[in-house]
Amino acid sequence: MPDIPRPPSDRATVRRLAKRGVYDQATIYAILDQSLYCHVGFVDQNQPFVIPTIHARVGGQLVLHGSRASRMLACLAAGAPACITATILDGLVLARSTFHHSMNYRSVVVLGRATEITADAEKSAALEALVERVVPGRAAEARPANPQELQATAVVAFPLDECSAKVRAGPPADDADDLTLPVWAGVLPLSLVCGEPLPDPHLPPGTPVPRYIREYRRV
Amino acid sequence: MPDIPRPPSDRATVRRLAKRGVYDQATIYAILDQSLYCHVGFVDQNQPFVIPTIHARVGGQLVLHGSRASRMLACLAAGAPACITATILDGLVLARSTFHHSMNYRSVVVLGRATEITADAEKSAALEALVERVVPGRAAEARPANPQELQATAVVAFPLDECSAKVRAGPPADDADDLTLPVWAGVLPLSLVCGEPLPDPHLPPGTPVPRYIREYRRV
Repeated sequence: MPDIPRPPSDRATVRRLAKRGVYDQATIYAILDQSLYCHVGFVDQNQPFVIPTIHARVGGQLVLHGSRASRMLACLAAGAPACITATILDGLVLARSTFHHSMNYRSVVVLGRATEITADAEKSAALEALVERVVPGRAAEARPANPQELQATAVVAFPLDECSAKVRAGPPADDADDLTLPVWAGVLPLSLVCGEPLPDPHLPPGTPVPRYIREYRRV
Repeated sequence: MPDIPRPPSDRATVRRLAKRGVYDQATIYAILDQSLYCHVGFVDQNQPFVIPTIHARVGGQLVLHGSRASRMLACLAAGAPACITATILDGLVLARSTFHHSMNYRSVVVLGRATEITADAEKSAALEALVERVVPGRAAEARPANPQELQATAVVAFPLDECSAKVRAGPPADDADDLTLPVWAGVLPLSLVCGEPLPDPHLPPGTPVPRYIREYRRV
């Protein structure tokens, strides 16, 4: 019988509703790969900050980037303890009691300290991964970063060795006594859906929309 | 001429791309009210944690809740410094250069320390606000929290006096030299869309789906 993956550390263990904790690499990687952005937590002068940004998983590392001038990148590049959380909302869970209302979601929490990526080739590859991860196909078409842009950008990588996922799926979990209440219960699914692409006003009229945009979907 | 709202504090000032910083109450409140969930940052044993949860704005306060047994609620109720960030993703911004790729989004960052709400009536009102905020109309129908559930739940409130919004909207901002590159550029709008409601398996067949579910929309 295969072992059930265990939490990598005490502090990376899901505490509340521990049955929702998931520690297998495939689940964790899939959530990181599907979520379009994450929230990064770091501490500056005893105050935690939580900032939305994009991420890309490159093998067993999670790559973030930003302006070299940003406080967040300065903190992360200095190796400060950080937490990166990516969350995908899948639906609203409507129970018969307010207490059991919930959401269906998949989230990953990554704890750790970053290492700055300083070599130009590795930085360029990470930036390409960031673009490609959000819009597959785009990196081959857009102009890559030039030396000045590369210089202005800081890239950091977190090892994915202290992380956990938390997943809720399925119908509401009402108390048995509540099942006969005359209240509709169920799940209202939610997903991130694309609208029609809006061409840039500077684009020559008739410029075709690339296939990777026309057919863009989040799985 | 009306004053432009100013940042409430140095640490709540948007630093990177400061022109995206917005400090007027109406914008901040609208983002908090529309976002379905937030990410809460707090520090435990020098390690920041970022946890997704739901929030409700009640006047000039932001209310969070959770199990009394949770580490997050214990930290928040003890008045630890926290950061609550709510982010709404509006689209992918595809520039001609990878450097100017971006996202259209609206986010709010709230800094502060919470106060626990302990009085039962005030707690019940806050829990009702949380349900009603996510699904307007639901609180009138679902069974309210009973004394045991109320006891097991901790509710905290943050003042909304140290917060800021950051907003990006509109087309890509390419460098002038890049405008003639033969690359499609523009915005791919994204929004959170409902699927068909999934009735709970325990629901008697034919139970009608309430109008507030059938017509559920995020503005």
